[in-house]
Amino acid sequence: MIPKEQAKIKSFRQQHGSTAIGQITVDMVYGGMRGMKGLIYETSVLDPDEGIRFRGYSIPECQKKLPKAAGGEEPLPEGLFWLLVTGEIPTQEQVTWLSREWAKRAALPSHVVTMLDNFPTNLHPMSQLSAAVTALNSESKFARAYAEGIHRAKYWEFVYEDAMDLIAKLPCVAAKIYRNLYREGSGIGAIDPNLDWSHNFTNMLGYTDPQFIELMRLYLTIHSDHEGGNVSAHTSHLVGSALSDPYLAFAAAMNGLAGPLHGLANQVVPGYGHAVLRKTDPRYTCQREFALKHLPKDPLFKLVAQLYKIVPNVLLEQGKAKNPWPNVDAHSGVLLQYYGMKEMNYYTVLFGVSRALGVLSQLIWSRALGFPLERPKSMSTKGLMQLVGYKSA
Amino acid sequence: MIPKEQAKIKSFRQQHGSTAIGQITVDMVYGGMRGMKGLIYETSVLDPDEGIRFRGYSIPECQKKLPKAAGGEEPLPEGLFWLLVTGEIPTQEQVTWLSREWAKRAALPSHVVTMLDNFPTNLHPMSQLSAAVTALNSESKFARAYAEGIHRAKYWEFVYEDAMDLIAKLPCVAAKIYRNLYREGSGIGAIDPNLDWSHNFTNMLGYTDPQFIELMRLYLTIHSDHEGGNVSAHTSHLVGSALSDPYLAFAAAMNGLAGPLHGLANQVVPGYGHAVLRKTDPRYTCQREFALKHLPKDPLFKLVAQLYKIVPNVLLEQGKAKNPWPNVDAHSGVLLQYYGMKEMNYYTVLFGVSRALGVLSQLIWSRALGFPLERPKSMSTKGLMQLVGYKSA
Repeated sequence: MIPKEQAKIKSFRQQHGSTAIGQITVDMVYGGMRGMKGLIYETSVLDPDEGIRFRGYSIPECQKKLPKAAGGEEPLPEGLFWLLVTGEIPTQEQVTWLSREWAKRAALPSHVVTMLDNFPTNLHPMSQLSAAVTALNSESKFARAYAEGIHRAKYWEFVYEDAMDLIAKLPCVAAKIYRNLYREGSGIGAIDPNLDWSHNFTNMLGYTDPQFIELMRLYLTIHSDHEGGNVSAHTSHLVGSALSDPYLAFAAAMNGLAGPLHGLANQVVPGYGHAVLRKTDPRYTCQREFALKHLPKDPLFKLVAQLYKIVPNVLLEQGKAKNPWPNVDAHSGVLLQYYGMKEMNYYTVLFGVSRALGVLSQLIWSRALGFPLERPKSMSTKGLMQLVGYKSA
Repeated sequence: MIPKEQAKIKSFRQQHGSTAIGQITVDMVYGGMRGMKGLIYETSVLDPDEGIRFRGYSIPECQKKLPKAAGGEEPLPEGLFWLLVTGEIPTQEQVTWLSREWAKRAALPSHVVTMLDNFPTNLHPMSQLSAAVTALNSESKFARAYAEGIHRAKYWEFVYEDAMDLIAKLPCVAAKIYRNLYREGSGIGAIDPNLDWSHNFTNMLGYTDPQFIELMRLYLTIHSDHEGGNVSAHTSHLVGSALSDPYLAFAAAMNGLAGPLHGLANQVVPGYGHAVLRKTDPRYTCQREFALKHLPKDPLFKLVAQLYKIVPNVLLEQGKAKNPWPNVDAHSGVLLQYYGMKEMNYYTVLFGVSRALGVLSQLIWSRALGFPLERPKSMSTKGLMQLVGYKSA
């Protein structure tokens, strides 16, 4: 597919390279690039009214079309990764191949195991995740190939290998963190090559309820990607553009996801409002449907459902929120709590494991399409004032 | 100073918030935001012809005006940090206060020492640095205060505390990495509260030549900041905008600096050309002057000087390089080699220690000025084609 996409973009840029698609204002520069069309991100696009679309498919469409586990009703994250990378809905067979491939690549190098086992309990699970992934870059096939000197046309192949390895290893890292912090360091057990990625992950975490396994399949699918402008995806994109390897790019993204205005929000906040979305987040809706199906009488779910009725009107009346509707974080906590995962500090790690599917898919394409170093121009306030001819009092 | 700056920006935005300062074209979006004015970065500005200015001061001006160590001729990095944070040239006394303050804050928590001592020798020094800084976030005063709930007007105070602590600890982390990898794990010794930051660093590294100490003062000054659009500064800015603490923001930046198109270039490349600069980098020039003063007869320096005469013309004749002039990396290696630091894989760590001064200064101001989440809009190729009305063949 790559030569075709390259050619398509080349023709497009030949005709429209200098076509203007927007203006930059002073407020946008102070306002964190809000509203600035700044980067190409092929795997998903966020519509302010509809929510996320993965390669054009909405979440309900993915739920319907992506392959399921035997006896399961939720999409397999393997299928979503296939879709994000290829743009096509995979067959059951292709998804099974991915599950096996990830099971094969899951082993952690011993130095990372030692590192995780030595972390103190007061080190946040997200810091543990990020530090471990950074240290995993000893395994990077891209970094090794780059150091040996490969042609840039080959970059994507090694990024793909690293992406596959990293996705395979992440559940082991995440489960080790969980067991060390909350289960007295009990072992994560062995990967079963006949199980899917989410099932192996829940086994390693120590959860065996089939409903929880289904929940993880859904959770890991819907948290994967949210176009390219959010802090984690953008950080991965930016760091990867310097040709840092996928381990380093993803670890940097995790440091962004660990911010309370981004992924860490799922530890604490009620989860209303969103930087871009202007309607109820479809990631909220599908989790609500899961709850209606599996835990309709749970008191905490009833509270969440009640808030959904009340909060948007309150926020609208206050007149301050541009978007009074619930986002993904307004519903994930109640589901995890119901199945016994009550350690809120850990929730962003689950988000992070899922986010790997999205940002690493794009990283493969960023190198395949030869995207250059990301390097905007910065301005000082003084310089910006001079530029527009403003004289400060 | 903060209320004054806040008021200044408020008035400016009231009058000019919607003033357009540039257009975004299709090529800019594919081209990594090149040429897009995208972020406010107060501490330094890069002029394509003149090179970097720190709060308006050029490198030669900083060399002249910033305080020196007793008997030394090079600027102290402490002075540059003071300048970046306050915009003012510090007195000798203020710089001495900073040296003492950093010496006081230098101790590493034991879990980070354990982590560094357990790293395998095949883990790149930059990965060791980044992972260690991420794990240092157990000490973050900002993260603790945020979790306890502080008013946003107070954010900068805790970011300042973290910045001071992190800068203080970085030489210890970096020296431990060096000793573990290249000096059989020999101890770094104790911090001397009467020595400046660079002198303590070189002691811990195991170098005692007074010229090398002077070189480090210069090196750590000139690598500190290069406006906000480069990958490390931008990454720190982006991750910090999600209110991730300074340890996480800086560690993410280091994962960017570890990219071969950014900081890692100083391991290997000849160091000609630059994304923004269009003349000889003043960071090259001041290192050349250092060499002319201290090692004029060194054969490797003679080679570097010879290349400076030949390479730009060759590149100009080829007609491919927009900028055929040497950058900072074209000269740093020869100086380090001369004094016996021959471990090239380590060079980017020195760059990273220095870069902390710049990106953490800006991080303090970003929170003081209440900069919001950085969140540009991404586009898919398909969406961009639709936007401009292009129909792919």
